[in-house]
Amino acid sequence: MSMFDRSAKGVFVIAPTPFLPDGALDLASTDRMTDAFIAAGAAGMTILGVMGEAPKLTEAESLAFVDRVIKRSAGRIPVVVGASAPGFAQMKAIARGSMDLGAAGIMVSPTPGLKGDEAVISYIAQAMDVVDAPFVLQDYPQLTNVTMTAPMIARMAQDQRMVMLKAEDWPGLDKLTAIRRLEAEGKMPRVSILGGVGGQFLPEELARGADGIMTGYAFPEMLVNVCKLMWAGQRDAAQDLFDLHLPLIRTEVQPGLGLAIRKYVLKRRGIIAHDTLRAPGPKLTPETAAEVDYLLARLARTQPLAAAA
Amino acid sequence: MSMFDRSAKGVFVIAPTPFLPDGALDLASTDRMTDAFIAAGAAGMTILGVMGEAPKLTEAESLAFVDRVIKRSAGRIPVVVGASAPGFAQMKAIARGSMDLGAAGIMVSPTPGLKGDEAVISYIAQAMDVVDAPFVLQDYPQLTNVTMTAPMIARMAQDQRMVMLKAEDWPGLDKLTAIRRLEAEGKMPRVSILGGVGGQFLPEELARGADGIMTGYAFPEMLVNVCKLMWAGQRDAAQDLFDLHLPLIRTEVQPGLGLAIRKYVLKRRGIIAHDTLRAPGPKLTPETAAEVDYLLARLARTQPLAAAA
Amino acid sequence: MSMFDRSAKGVFVIAPTPFLPDGALDLASTDRMTDAFIAAGAAGMTILGVMGEAPKLTEAESLAFVDRVIKRSAGRIPVVVGASAPGFAQMKAIARGSMDLGAAGIMVSPTPGLKGDEAVISYIAQAMDVVDAPFVLQDYPQLTNVTMTAPMIARMAQDQRMVMLKAEDWPGLDKLTAIRRLEAEGKMPRVSILGGVGGQFLPEELARGADGIMTGYAFPEMLVNVCKLMWAGQRDAAQDLFDLHLPLIRTEVQPGLGLAIRKYVLKRRGIIAHDTLRAPGPKLTPETAAEVDYLLARLARTQPLAAAA
Amino acid sequence: MSMFDRSAKGVFVIAPTPFLPDGALDLASTDRMTDAFIAAGAAGMTILGVMGEAPKLTEAESLAFVDRVIKRSAGRIPVVVGASAPGFAQMKAIARGSMDLGAAGIMVSPTPGLKGDEAVISYIAQAMDVVDAPFVLQDYPQLTNVTMTAPMIARMAQDQRMVMLKAEDWPGLDKLTAIRRLEAEGKMPRVSILGGVGGQFLPEELARGADGIMTGYAFPEMLVNVCKLMWAGQRDAAQDLFDLHLPLIRTEVQPGLGLAIRKYVLKRRGIIAHDTLRAPGPKLTPETAAEVDYLLARLARTQPLAAAA
Repeated sequence: MSMFDRSAKGVFVIAPTPFLPDGALDLASTDRMTDAFIAAGAAGMTILGVMGEAPKLTEAESLAFVDRVIKRSAGRIPVVVGASAPGFAQMKAIARGSMDLGAAGIMVSPTPGLKGDEAVISYIAQAMDVVDAPFVLQDYPQLTNVTMTAPMIARMAQDQRMVMLKAEDWPGLDKLTAIRRLEAEGKMPRVSILGGVGGQFLPEELARGADGIMTGYAFPEMLVNVCKLMWAGQRDAAQDLFDLHLPLIRTEVQPGLGLAIRKYVLKRRGIIAHDTLRAPGPKLTPETAAEVDYLLARLARTQPLAAAA
Repeated sequence: MSMFDRSAKGVFVIAPTPFLPDGALDLASTDRMTDAFIAAGAAGMTILGVMGEAPKLTEAESLAFVDRVIKRSAGRIPVVVGASAPGFAQMKAIARGSMDLGAAGIMVSPTPGLKGDEAVISYIAQAMDVVDAPFVLQDYPQLTNVTMTAPMIARMAQDQRMVMLKAEDWPGLDKLTAIRRLEAEGKMPRVSILGGVGGQFLPEELARGADGIMTGYAFPEMLVNVCKLMWAGQRDAAQDLFDLHLPLIRTEVQPGLGLAIRKYVLKRRGIIAHDTLRAPGPKLTPETAAEVDYLLARLARTQPLAAAA
Repeated sequence: MSMFDRSAKGVFVIAPTPFLPDGALDLASTDRMTDAFIAAGAAGMTILGVMGEAPKLTEAESLAFVDRVIKRSAGRIPVVVGASAPGFAQMKAIARGSMDLGAAGIMVSPTPGLKGDEAVISYIAQAMDVVDAPFVLQDYPQLTNVTMTAPMIARMAQDQRMVMLKAEDWPGLDKLTAIRRLEAEGKMPRVSILGGVGGQFLPEELARGADGIMTGYAFPEMLVNVCKLMWAGQRDAAQDLFDLHLPLIRTEVQPGLGLAIRKYVLKRRGIIAHDTLRAPGPKLTPETAAEVDYLLARLARTQPLAAAA
Repeated sequence: MSMFDRSAKGVFVIAPTPFLPDGALDLASTDRMTDAFIAAGAAGMTILGVMGEAPKLTEAESLAFVDRVIKRSAGRIPVVVGASAPGFAQMKAIARGSMDLGAAGIMVSPTPGLKGDEAVISYIAQAMDVVDAPFVLQDYPQLTNVTMTAPMIARMAQDQRMVMLKAEDWPGLDKLTAIRRLEAEGKMPRVSILGGVGGQFLPEELARGADGIMTGYAFPEMLVNVCKLMWAGQRDAAQDLFDLHLPLIRTEVQPGLGLAIRKYVLKRRGIIAHDTLRAPGPKLTPETAAEVDYLLARLARTQPLAAAA
């Protein structure tokens, strides 16, 4: 397996949790999805994040899904498991359980309701002790309402276990630059930073110093290729490719509705068998599905992958 | 056991979950607490609510605790179990598991993020189907940020399974009156309504038509006696007794800190062995503990129960 | 002037309030901006909205700005004035003052903190009485945290003064469809609906039945042309044009930062003289400015208007 | 006038803004109220706070009210004016206007939406420059959702203009202790600290080191006397007096409804002529008014002041 450390780079695909129409785990789709993401060039996978409907799984289901993905990936890529939880007991259960099953690292975001910078820093320090594994810090204030500034992250990164930052603040590009500047000034160790926010700012994130992206856009191939083009210095070509996908990205990042759209596209692509979400959850209207179909058809004019959808 | 139906009345004590210093379930304290609350005159107990640190328990721990309380109560009082959860799968697991263990009913609050009256009504209708047991609707907008007006509750109460409303809006007295008025006008069936908000408005709640209260104040004996006095028409005597406890009530309802104070008082009373909260959680400073001690000492001048603390 | 009634359609440009470097109103830029938006094909202008930094203006400044825009527009297009305020006294002052100066209508959003559908409907009914002028209902829950469903809007639209809905929920396309369906079923009168959310979903909004859009994207010419193409049945051509602008739209809709970017682009276009925001407010970093410059340069390859920037 | 500096102590009464039934300023009641609060032993008055319905006043009305209170107080007590505003332009207008009229100081809370400790500290530093007058920092996170920890306040207090902290966090007693500890350790200058939260924790606040309280409870005489008793070392007597009022305090601190109750009590006491709130605002139901009447009658058994109500 490629190592999972502070040098990690590339596209970590955030995977949804596939369900059968009756809401049970769809393990066959889980296998197919894992293969598809690896085939797409993923450098890693992240499971049981917000997009993975983790809070709607029982603990047993969570670990069953972790086990399946890790077994299927068979060491080809590192698998990161989300373990954010209201209490440290559950966080520990998921984290230790996942590491025992072969996970490469654990992703945690600060729990909502923390007050003041020191409380956040203290919480993450405790979480790293609880998890005691390669740690991915998720900075997603739109969901947690917890702010982490660059100097705060610099302090957290003094702990060697902090391997990676999933940078998902919005807007967040200037924070990314501020972190890289603190690193350059020797004020913090260099960590792996992957962008997020659905892929909306991938070219800019990479130009600002991100090592890749961790997101769940339904065409990870594009994310991979944009990274390659950027790293080859082909900024314009990267943006050209990115722009082709931006209408669909924009559609997928709609709050609440986005996951339903992603599962619909993954189903259209043959990657998962059903676009079931666990209840309570949104359903696509025929109008929305038709809009997605239209965007897929447009994309297919130039992107063979979309043509297969 | 007294029946748990729409005629339920009295004090349903919301129980904390006792932990050992290492964070494990403290089942010996659980037994002692159950006995103490029944001895105090509780008409019922409610477990695994917000105050029960439910989101910090694993599913197995939750059901172990439910089992213990129900076994210990041995049919002397009905036990209501909180089953609010991000997904219906977990809600069902806790609800069905608890009913199988002998619970009298299941308490659920609307999930945060619901938008518009109809979405709330629809969610609760689905939750009643998921739970499919005597249903307690928890109206606690300070936590959920979901509004339920009297006419909305009237619609929900058309479902025969809705047995009880835990009325915890703040301010909420006018809503309580509005609901009783809708009942009087024949616009909704009469349901059991228990007050809440830490007991802060118990006399007023009863005067407005509440059938009792469901709260976790550490001296449920007072709640029971205020109910008795009010029902005996002794409004002034009820208020006199209530006022003696109000300084401590005020101290216990502080957000975040309140549960730590309640566990501290219950420990002082000998009802639980430890005042451990699961991490992450607040700790009492010596200053706060001293303030609580002072209030207990004052209370003990007239209230023998507090003298024992 | 084109009438401002329920048949209104086209692009209503939401105008920023131009300031001099010292923070004073920049009335020369105000004139130039008004001319530029009319030249771009605007069907109307909306001023003193959120984007207009209205809460940072004194009442006297607000009315001075309203007066200047209306005088300059000289009846060529209707001018809508935002009058949302914590109290009805101020709402009335701005609304009546603006109507006396020649405004075509007044835009109001529900005040934050309203609880339950009926409270929202009642608030808007009162606001229409306070304003007593052609009324634009702004549905912008990302800012107000107040939900307005299609059936709620149907009830509000029974008041003849409600001329227009600014549909800015996100996601909001299905709500737009639901409103048009209620109209088709005779359950509410037909009102003008303009889309929003920064222009991100303009083609879809129009396809769902919007009469145009009310937003502040810095190239209103594109918005006008997309409308024309859509109305001419040229869906693909509309989307082609839209897609060219989407990277910049995406950049402008970033919360907090977006207005600074729009003012920067309007300055680059020579429409306003300074990109000053009133304090407290964000400032563009050189990195962000360079990213915007890059997107403008790309746009200029095909869009002569951007070449001028 | 007693000086308004870091040695300020005692009860600063937060005054409501009296209105006539038609919503206009009631200046006759303003005079009577000013006299009554001074007669009650107020060490100062605070106007145009949240409780003063400041956001519902026009700028002209605000300054007219400031002028009236200051003229009437005639130097007998310092008058602090609230100047929190979305923009610094308005803050400056109210602050400078009020200082010119003879205000003793200006109270400001951080604007909602600030992210991270440094942003809050920077905002307050800017606000002190804008105001440039004796500065009262309002710490009221229940309203602003902005956290200010003791170390943050210590940094803000390095500015000599910061005279006073209005400590209104809830729970906030441990923060008060932490600030006094930082002062004792020489890590910050000693500032005046007044408690708040409606008076709910006055004895504890004073015991923790507060110099008094700034709140709007409708019987400021009690607040004054509790301060006197505490400072005379009569802790029990202070608590005895406090406890008599706690049922009414509890009723007045209900969010949304509290101001209506306070105005009702002040009207009953003959201090203001009308209990009008500006729209939109809550109205007391007959049931709530009767509950307040009952509490007043109970209070009157021992408190002659309440008997007059």
